[in-house]
Amino acid sequence: MKNITLLGATGSIGTQTLEVVKQHPDRFNIAAISFGQNIERGIDIIKAFKPELVAVKNEQVKDELLHALSLHNIRVVSGLEGLIEAATYPNADILVNAVMGSVGLKPTLAAIHSGKDIAIANKETLVTAGHFVMEKANEKGVRLLPVDSEHSAIFQSLEGHRCEDVSRLILTASGGSFRDRTREELKDVSVQDALNHPNWSMGAKITIDSATLMNKGLEVIEAHWLFNMPYEKIDVVIHKESIVHSLVEYYDKSVIAQLGNPDMKGPIQYALSYPERLELKDVKRLNLWEAGTLHFQKVDMNRFRSLALAYEAGRTGGSLPTVLNAANEAAVEHFLKGRIAFLDIESLVESALEAHKVIKNPDLETIEEIDSQTRRFINDKAADI
Amino acid sequence: MKNITLLGATGSIGTQTLEVVKQHPDRFNIAAISFGQNIERGIDIIKAFKPELVAVKNEQVKDELLHALSLHNIRVVSGLEGLIEAATYPNADILVNAVMGSVGLKPTLAAIHSGKDIAIANKETLVTAGHFVMEKANEKGVRLLPVDSEHSAIFQSLEGHRCEDVSRLILTASGGSFRDRTREELKDVSVQDALNHPNWSMGAKITIDSATLMNKGLEVIEAHWLFNMPYEKIDVVIHKESIVHSLVEYYDKSVIAQLGNPDMKGPIQYALSYPERLELKDVKRLNLWEAGTLHFQKVDMNRFRSLALAYEAGRTGGSLPTVLNAANEAAVEHFLKGRIAFLDIESLVESALEAHKVIKNPDLETIEEIDSQTRRFINDKAADI
Repeated sequence: MKNITLLGATGSIGTQTLEVVKQHPDRFNIAAISFGQNIERGIDIIKAFKPELVAVKNEQVKDELLHALSLHNIRVVSGLEGLIEAATYPNADILVNAVMGSVGLKPTLAAIHSGKDIAIANKETLVTAGHFVMEKANEKGVRLLPVDSEHSAIFQSLEGHRCEDVSRLILTASGGSFRDRTREELKDVSVQDALNHPNWSMGAKITIDSATLMNKGLEVIEAHWLFNMPYEKIDVVIHKESIVHSLVEYYDKSVIAQLGNPDMKGPIQYALSYPERLELKDVKRLNLWEAGTLHFQKVDMNRFRSLALAYEAGRTGGSLPTVLNAANEAAVEHFLKGRIAFLDIESLVESALEAHKVIKNPDLETIEEIDSQTRRFINDKAADI
Repeated sequence: MKNITLLGATGSIGTQTLEVVKQHPDRFNIAAISFGQNIERGIDIIKAFKPELVAVKNEQVKDELLHALSLHNIRVVSGLEGLIEAATYPNADILVNAVMGSVGLKPTLAAIHSGKDIAIANKETLVTAGHFVMEKANEKGVRLLPVDSEHSAIFQSLEGHRCEDVSRLILTASGGSFRDRTREELKDVSVQDALNHPNWSMGAKITIDSATLMNKGLEVIEAHWLFNMPYEKIDVVIHKESIVHSLVEYYDKSVIAQLGNPDMKGPIQYALSYPERLELKDVKRLNLWEAGTLHFQKVDMNRFRSLALAYEAGRTGGSLPTVLNAANEAAVEHFLKGRIAFLDIESLVESALEAHKVIKNPDLETIEEIDSQTRRFINDKAADI
């Protein structure tokens, strides 16, 4: 039996993690959860999975929850402190970190410190503080198991092969909601259009990131850290069907890939069951003759400017990826609230990168400070638009 | 340094094996070779690779070779006895069996008996006597390393994963020279048309087998034995670009595949370098955006009747796969000599399968007898056409 702490239980990855757990009551148990303020959904989860510990956003949510539910044998905590208590919950064997954004950083570091393996869906953690997180994970001998479909695909395609034989990682990108539009056609797109992803059902922030391809940029940086791979050995290819989830090329020109119908339950379960595989009933079997045709095309870095910015931030390193991530999070929030246009996201991010003076090897405090500064910078800039 | 015996050195796989060896003079050495009667090419190989032992088809070829070349420190042998001497040559670490047809069986068994690992390109050996060969290999702890691109792909896609987690093997088939023709359009095709394979440059027999899809049928049986997989867990999908070389599906619906530009040097080198990988310079790197589009379609078993016959022979087992293989070898020979039409190949094979009374667990002698009987049966039938 594997006992799980699930941070971000009411989100998209959280919900699908619970579906996986439900399929294998003999293998997985939810020991602790966190959620923000979706109390209705939170109560359903608590009733169904009976966690021992529940962390919520703040005291107000905690009070509402305690009022709505007569909780026996369940401890409710709140705030960042509560989130960290859940992340390090002693009865859990593994942490699934599915919170959104760089708020996931501190719980991840705390879980590493407590020696827990981490199934990491929170890519912002690795983007904003990859050098720091990997150093700590290596020190503690903690395993970071990827939950992103792309990184899970690479992880699976590396399994059983020697890392020194790898010549290239190739991440596939669906191209998002606006794949076939020109930059000109992107000027007036609506939030609703941007949220309409062709293949994957995901949260709002990551769906916007998919449309800008910033999501792929964050994934490139994540891959750099997770697989210890230099940026010149990480490629991206547009693959609109999202059937080939990513690939690894070896020095003998052999390429190993992982494929499947687009469904996050596969990567989630693999992170939980690794190194075993378990039957996964409600995911559709991939028959390539039903898929019929798979398309691949080169990424136009001028068209998808955010991806170029991410490569630039990654290659420069130091504190620049922190700026990239914070600027993007803040800009996407403004776009989702209808305050700025779609193309403003990348120009705001670019202006933040340009304004920043890079600091090498930033410590945690510096990272947090730069994160806050950058958000303020974006908020000011957005106000002027 | 790995010392290699290469049987079938002047053939297509043999030639490409030598190209691989040439790229890595510090890793591979040709200790012994065999070839049939292509003396000119044989002499070139002997001069370039300086094997210690050379096996040729018969005494006449041996005499011609000795006459043409002043051979110092090279032993020349002939016939089946010579082939077996080469296959078991004590100075060799591994046997590459790239002879064509069921003549490869006895050298394979002899090499297994001598405890040598085998890189097996001679699929007919496993088709005609799979139960026997695998039993002996398991007894001796000998490794059979696949050289066929499909089986190498499966081998690579299984590496590092647990066999008990496999739900299906999926072999890709280019569809051969006549993929898009109807049965009606196959009636009058010429030998030349049939030899014109779209993706792979191979020997004549295997190119015809690709056009009938019997090659895929033989590969299904080969996969059954190599990977110990029941026939209901082996699927075939038409993939005309031959970029995805084959796939393995696991119980969690995750599919691992091996891809590459079509070039046999990849699989050959992997069998020789396993479990390491070596750089392979003169094979083109796969960039999926250059490939652009990959197509997959279901195999129509009525259109490609040979594949259905192979599944039937495999599922029935016993001596029936021996009949399938011998009948096909004989029928293809008649077609290549212009004596029968293309569609006669499969009807001759079918009539041989129907006429045969299956023997369970045939021993080697019985297999050889059935092989000869079947060839006579086909020759008689072909004479009537």
